[in-house]
Amino acid sequence: MSPIGTVTPERYGESMVFSQRLEYAARLVEGRLEQLVGSLAREGTPPRLIEAMRHATLGGGKRVRPFLVLEAASLFGVPVSAALTTAAAVECVHCYSLVHDDLPAMDNDDVRRGKPTVHKAFDEWTAILAGDALLTVAFALLAGPDGDHDPAIRAELVCGLAAAAGAAGMVGGQCLDLEADKLNRPPAPDLDHVRRLQAMKTGALITFACEAGALLGRATAAERTALAGYGDKLGLAFQIADDLLDAEGDAASLGKATRKDEGKATLLAVAGVARAKDRLRALEDEIVAALQTFGAKAEGLRQAARFVINRNS
Amino acid sequence: MSPIGTVTPERYGESMVFSQRLEYAARLVEGRLEQLVGSLAREGTPPRLIEAMRHATLGGGKRVRPFLVLEAASLFGVPVSAALTTAAAVECVHCYSLVHDDLPAMDNDDVRRGKPTVHKAFDEWTAILAGDALLTVAFALLAGPDGDHDPAIRAELVCGLAAAAGAAGMVGGQCLDLEADKLNRPPAPDLDHVRRLQAMKTGALITFACEAGALLGRATAAERTALAGYGDKLGLAFQIADDLLDAEGDAASLGKATRKDEGKATLLAVAGVARAKDRLRALEDEIVAALQTFGAKAEGLRQAARFVINRNS
Repeated sequence: MSPIGTVTPERYGESMVFSQRLEYAARLVEGRLEQLVGSLAREGTPPRLIEAMRHATLGGGKRVRPFLVLEAASLFGVPVSAALTTAAAVECVHCYSLVHDDLPAMDNDDVRRGKPTVHKAFDEWTAILAGDALLTVAFALLAGPDGDHDPAIRAELVCGLAAAAGAAGMVGGQCLDLEADKLNRPPAPDLDHVRRLQAMKTGALITFACEAGALLGRATAAERTALAGYGDKLGLAFQIADDLLDAEGDAASLGKATRKDEGKATLLAVAGVARAKDRLRALEDEIVAALQTFGAKAEGLRQAARFVINRNS
Repeated sequence: MSPIGTVTPERYGESMVFSQRLEYAARLVEGRLEQLVGSLAREGTPPRLIEAMRHATLGGGKRVRPFLVLEAASLFGVPVSAALTTAAAVECVHCYSLVHDDLPAMDNDDVRRGKPTVHKAFDEWTAILAGDALLTVAFALLAGPDGDHDPAIRAELVCGLAAAAGAAGMVGGQCLDLEADKLNRPPAPDLDHVRRLQAMKTGALITFACEAGALLGRATAAERTALAGYGDKLGLAFQIADDLLDAEGDAASLGKATRKDEGKATLLAVAGVARAKDRLRALEDEIVAALQTFGAKAEGLRQAARFVINRNS
């Protein structure tokens, strides 16, 4: 990252263009995660576990999910400082999912964000435990006093994250994905199955990130539905873009292995590259439409969609 | 289990002797877990994941931790029906920890509660995901409306469980245990290290079970401290009894492998069998003393301590 001076929540958003805003948010999230990891030692966490959690969370990643929390919250005037803990919790869950998904028993990946994966840098048992600890601490962040001043909102955030990350969400999606891959049950060329898998595996946490901002902002039901709709479509766009990068990108600029999806149940495999690209363009319009109710304030979220769709790493 | 008629929360405790009470509580918890697993299908969880979660949670276990939740809550007049969801959440975390601890990369156990471990009955990736999903759903149970009618209590339960189960609690304790085992760093004969490891690995969740009952019961700070003290000592007693069973018990009656602790950092290894047995007897008296403030109402918790100390399986 380029130097952008002292990073304070107060400066976020002040007449920043999108790329600065995204980078600034990433710095703020990095700082919050750094603070979290730093606090572990004071609580008696073994140093090896701290180092593995540090490796899993710090020094990389676009931090798209926490950015969505901050941007969605900002629609309702929630200051970044008040949404940062929730944003960090969402990122902890994302990081835990990467650590576990990379394990030899799952996707067996050696490189992540240009660095060795946690089980490569440490070992498998440390990676499993670091993932478990990251998932656990995410709920502590949401339920603690930094999550929100109202415990009812904190409890609702916990329920929302658990639903998005759990058996009917992210973990369930990973299960469907691995079933196709590991159990010699090649996916039937069924768009519904692929959509369901992707909505669970990738979409649910992205949608929760948007809904969490709405919760922090005491959004109306209609506003929350609009943001959830935005999240759903963004999640799908994110996954299609990811699949296209896997098929067409190169490992060096992605910082992870490519051509990993061959044989997997992706939209590309079912519909082909051309139709996937068409769908992505159509989603861009749908995403912009979903944000109409928020007017100019939603420019950050609109740009986030363009960024997700057009990114090349 | 022997037939004890229809199991309803309302009948719990009515003039039951301890063994009936423990068995009845186990049935109630089993029923709540069955209900939870049943609800997963309606939410779209993949059948394979549901089956693995069912295998991990149902059909076995003494259910000591949820029993402690129910008994601690009952000290304050909380009906079993109101404490059962919290009790089930604690058991979900215990079950997840067994699934992950049994993995080849960790303790590499093939048998648990007399059945194949989850990675043996399914495979490693399914076991990792089932554990992840059980941990996640535990927080959903606590934070949801069934946890308590007051969201502030629900948020506090989430924080307490996350602290007990996380990097400075159960996961951290497992890390310390495996460090000694896997990294060729034989534990120094240091009682403090062993006590810290056991307090984290086993003690923290047992103590939380007791504190959760206090939270549900709106206990005073003094009452909560007394219950936490009871939990701390009970956790230590539990671990010493477990270590003695590992060293002296037989695999058939335990339903799991024995002599697994050889070379591990246990109190037995550091202090020897005779001193461990002395400590266990002393703990029995200390545990009874910790409950003095609750009078006759705490008979269930007193008996639980005797049960934990004298059990042979």
